[in-house]
Amino acid sequence: MPAFQTLGLIAKQGDPERVRGTLVRLREHLRARAIEVRLEAESAHLLDAPIGEALALDRLGAVCDLIVVVGGDGTLLHAARVMAPHDVPLLGINLGRLGFLVDVSPEHIESALDRILAGEFDSDRRSMLDARIVTDQDAGEPEAALNDVSIHKWGTARMIELEIRIDGVFVSAQRSDGLIVSTPTGSTAYALSGGGPLVDPALDAILLVPICPHDLSNRPLVVPGGRSIEVRVRGSEQGHVQVTCDGQTDLRLPPGARVRIARHPHAAHLIHPKGHDHYQILRAKLHWGGHHITRTPPC
Amino acid sequence: MPAFQTLGLIAKQGDPERVRGTLVRLREHLRARAIEVRLEAESAHLLDAPIGEALALDRLGAVCDLIVVVGGDGTLLHAARVMAPHDVPLLGINLGRLGFLVDVSPEHIESALDRILAGEFDSDRRSMLDARIVTDQDAGEPEAALNDVSIHKWGTARMIELEIRIDGVFVSAQRSDGLIVSTPTGSTAYALSGGGPLVDPALDAILLVPICPHDLSNRPLVVPGGRSIEVRVRGSEQGHVQVTCDGQTDLRLPPGARVRIARHPHAAHLIHPKGHDHYQILRAKLHWGGHHITRTPPC
Amino acid sequence: MPAFQTLGLIAKQGDPERVRGTLVRLREHLRARAIEVRLEAESAHLLDAPIGEALALDRLGAVCDLIVVVGGDGTLLHAARVMAPHDVPLLGINLGRLGFLVDVSPEHIESALDRILAGEFDSDRRSMLDARIVTDQDAGEPEAALNDVSIHKWGTARMIELEIRIDGVFVSAQRSDGLIVSTPTGSTAYALSGGGPLVDPALDAILLVPICPHDLSNRPLVVPGGRSIEVRVRGSEQGHVQVTCDGQTDLRLPPGARVRIARHPHAAHLIHPKGHDHYQILRAKLHWGGHHITRTPPC
Amino acid sequence: MPAFQTLGLIAKQGDPERVRGTLVRLREHLRARAIEVRLEAESAHLLDAPIGEALALDRLGAVCDLIVVVGGDGTLLHAARVMAPHDVPLLGINLGRLGFLVDVSPEHIESALDRILAGEFDSDRRSMLDARIVTDQDAGEPEAALNDVSIHKWGTARMIELEIRIDGVFVSAQRSDGLIVSTPTGSTAYALSGGGPLVDPALDAILLVPICPHDLSNRPLVVPGGRSIEVRVRGSEQGHVQVTCDGQTDLRLPPGARVRIARHPHAAHLIHPKGHDHYQILRAKLHWGGHHITRTPPC
Repeated sequence: MPAFQTLGLIAKQGDPERVRGTLVRLREHLRARAIEVRLEAESAHLLDAPIGEALALDRLGAVCDLIVVVGGDGTLLHAARVMAPHDVPLLGINLGRLGFLVDVSPEHIESALDRILAGEFDSDRRSMLDARIVTDQDAGEPEAALNDVSIHKWGTARMIELEIRIDGVFVSAQRSDGLIVSTPTGSTAYALSGGGPLVDPALDAILLVPICPHDLSNRPLVVPGGRSIEVRVRGSEQGHVQVTCDGQTDLRLPPGARVRIARHPHAAHLIHPKGHDHYQILRAKLHWGGHHITRTPPC
Repeated sequence: MPAFQTLGLIAKQGDPERVRGTLVRLREHLRARAIEVRLEAESAHLLDAPIGEALALDRLGAVCDLIVVVGGDGTLLHAARVMAPHDVPLLGINLGRLGFLVDVSPEHIESALDRILAGEFDSDRRSMLDARIVTDQDAGEPEAALNDVSIHKWGTARMIELEIRIDGVFVSAQRSDGLIVSTPTGSTAYALSGGGPLVDPALDAILLVPICPHDLSNRPLVVPGGRSIEVRVRGSEQGHVQVTCDGQTDLRLPPGARVRIARHPHAAHLIHPKGHDHYQILRAKLHWGGHHITRTPPC
Repeated sequence: MPAFQTLGLIAKQGDPERVRGTLVRLREHLRARAIEVRLEAESAHLLDAPIGEALALDRLGAVCDLIVVVGGDGTLLHAARVMAPHDVPLLGINLGRLGFLVDVSPEHIESALDRILAGEFDSDRRSMLDARIVTDQDAGEPEAALNDVSIHKWGTARMIELEIRIDGVFVSAQRSDGLIVSTPTGSTAYALSGGGPLVDPALDAILLVPICPHDLSNRPLVVPGGRSIEVRVRGSEQGHVQVTCDGQTDLRLPPGARVRIARHPHAAHLIHPKGHDHYQILRAKLHWGGHHITRTPPC
Repeated sequence: MPAFQTLGLIAKQGDPERVRGTLVRLREHLRARAIEVRLEAESAHLLDAPIGEALALDRLGAVCDLIVVVGGDGTLLHAARVMAPHDVPLLGINLGRLGFLVDVSPEHIESALDRILAGEFDSDRRSMLDARIVTDQDAGEPEAALNDVSIHKWGTARMIELEIRIDGVFVSAQRSDGLIVSTPTGSTAYALSGGGPLVDPALDAILLVPICPHDLSNRPLVVPGGRSIEVRVRGSEQGHVQVTCDGQTDLRLPPGARVRIARHPHAAHLIHPKGHDHYQILRAKLHWGGHHITRTPPC
């Protein structure tokens, strides 16, 4: 009996030519193996399924025991955030270019799926963040993030001043363009652009990476994953700060309010073909060994 | 006869307690030396001068042969931009904290002024930038910048994609939060936060510093000061980019338009007490020799 | 009864004028409280004690239940490495300049000591590294490091090529001037100079920071503290690589051999006056809030 | 009549398989065009020419009016240094991998050469550095560098302390692993590994890039190309510092001596096939547009 009975298909939006063929192959292959296939709106649309059959993402997470995401890392980030409470495993199929998270190539779908259905896969739990806007009166609705929560200037050219506390202890007041609070998974994303380190996904940690800090000694900081981070905007730019999860979901930060970021109660559950090697993906994506520059060349 | 006959006083806005006393001392000292003193709105206000006596900044630059700026670097940046066409020398008096540009301490005003009026001063010409929004139809009004012209995302969490040409030659298309185009003077300002190098003000050069670039190999670039830089926004975020001069003046960049940045026809003309030493200011402002960290300490 | 009965005194070498007075005050204060005081060679010398009374550092760690180090971070690093097996707590008294590790000021010695003897102190365990040279035949003697193990070119201007494995898995082959493998404690030392992040000492992690890497994408890497790191030199520069612990102890790396670095079986045991705040020390040492640069200053 | 009559061939050492075929093709093609071909030791060896025909590099520069270098950037750096006084143009043919300096591919040799012999080429003058060891008694023999002069610790794990003066004015005393003084050409080499900016080769400038500086605010510095830079080692590590030109030639720096670095009286004279585009090479070598990371991906 296959390891998974009911499989949900999620497709990247806005790229029908590249996605459709892969979806069709996937559905045929799964039908031939008697796996039930459920769809969300975009995959239903691309597969010409009756719109009535399409499930909302959240519902899809509840009724499936495996979700296959066809798209890029962004599609998977979105699915992981919405499905966080369901602990349903996610398998990412890229559209021809390797992603950090969507690591199965379309040309290998059928064989990869067969092995996964046969139970041959690696489970990979990635910690997520929970961000909420907090005032003295109450704490707002939580938002999830698999990569990062960025707190950044919005509609202003001025620096903002952020006061950072970790587990209630004052850490720093820093002037910058913002702050990226990132998971290890997010360490290859926005945090890397901001000068942060790479962090092994198995490390239980949170990164704080200042964006263009005014003080050159305001370096990226790595803290234990169980810490609670609270960020408050000081001074005149309080109305000009936005909080964004995974570059996709925005939270309004009213003057006087704070952002509280902590480990999300649920981890994202990725699965990969057996033999998944995080560092192999790093090498491929970061062109390690590209040997770009000529420094002390032999004569 | 003093080197300067008519002196304009410019005051930082919004900080009356710290500015007023310095202005009063300045005016008295100058009157005793029979120097004519002209005021702009803020200095007139703080000195209780009739508002009718206050001149617009631009007019002040036209009628004075020396401008004394009391405030911070920001006050001087503003004055330098507005007065660029008049080639009038600017002397910066800080409010107690050394600036990169306002380097005379309030406690030394009288003696510093006397020596400057006696002709003992160092002249320091700083190249400025000229930025304008260009479309296929026409080139917009030029804006001046003494520090930098930054092209940055505005009201979006997404990266922007910028296509950069220098003297018409394609250089790169880079995805980032933006680009800082800076003078050597600006190399200690926003460009430094973005990871740019320090540049000696005597070097005729322009810096291009990407803000949080997506490609780690998109490093800061230094080009000859005579080059013309043109930046165009690619893709979907075209409505979400702003151009800002010295962090103070904003230019709207409509979709399809480009920013053209080149050396300004006028240089800013700073004067300093004799013996001005740029590297002494760098050492003081950047805490060189602070010896923060303990790396290979003796036992 | 005091929390500690037998106290060892360790003094920085080569700085008798600054150290002696502090030692004398310490000894008198401790005698008045009937604490037994033991000395190593330098403190015995500075206190004019019979040389026969001086103990080797290792022996001192065995017979004392508290060690007081008078000097800089380097003196404490040395003591921590030698005493690692004894789990004896170390208290660091600086010579007037705050260290990351020696955080008690000489002017507060007596009151700080009294509170510590009364049991009012914070315990702070810092993970250490264990480095050894490994060949196919055998593993060499282990060396301890509290800050870092650096693997660096030695007597050559050429880049070296290092092959890095973590828990036996190939991570990267990188060309550089070397690699700093650091504890969280060492993240404020050499690793910081090399572009590494700050790491909270409570995080169980190891940092790998490349020194001047040839590939710009060879970024600092943070991995779980339980990992075993193995580094091998490739190519022609095999005879030109040195391994150094805390910048103080060198290990020869013969051609063909590897360095193996893992968590040391013992942690260093620092104690601090009650209310120790790591981030307060960071702020003081790194001049956070120094506000060096003027970027978007108000007019 | 061809633009060049006597052509010298220089070959990379230690790579006979890849070099020989290219040399043979070159010689035949040139003979057919009645160009006189002269050889240095390695090219004579690979072409089985009588050893008596081989010229020393310096002599080759004197008798030829074009030098063709077959190898990598390192081969060209070496040739440029030795031939600096002769102002003879250098054409670089790579061995299959594009270099920053050797930009003609072996498969295009014949056609590229024909066009160059027909006078269709771009001339590219690159400033060089002149480094010499100076004591109070005298100034040593000058060494040339086309990329950089690095002043770096040698046979020690300790930081060195360097005192830097520019045109006699004290700039900074910095503790670090060393200092890279680089031309614009060298800005893509060691200086880039050390965190320096890219510098357009047309800019008349010198870069100073600290290697792992102790102070985080010790940033790379760019100064006018006409400046004279003097570096002195302070403190106890004076015997442990080496000066290296282009990673290839070492100068001993005795205790008490200084290194003086200034623009070399001669520029290197590179020629390229018509239409040479420096930024195209940068894009290719630095993988600009590689789009490594996924930061704010669309869903």
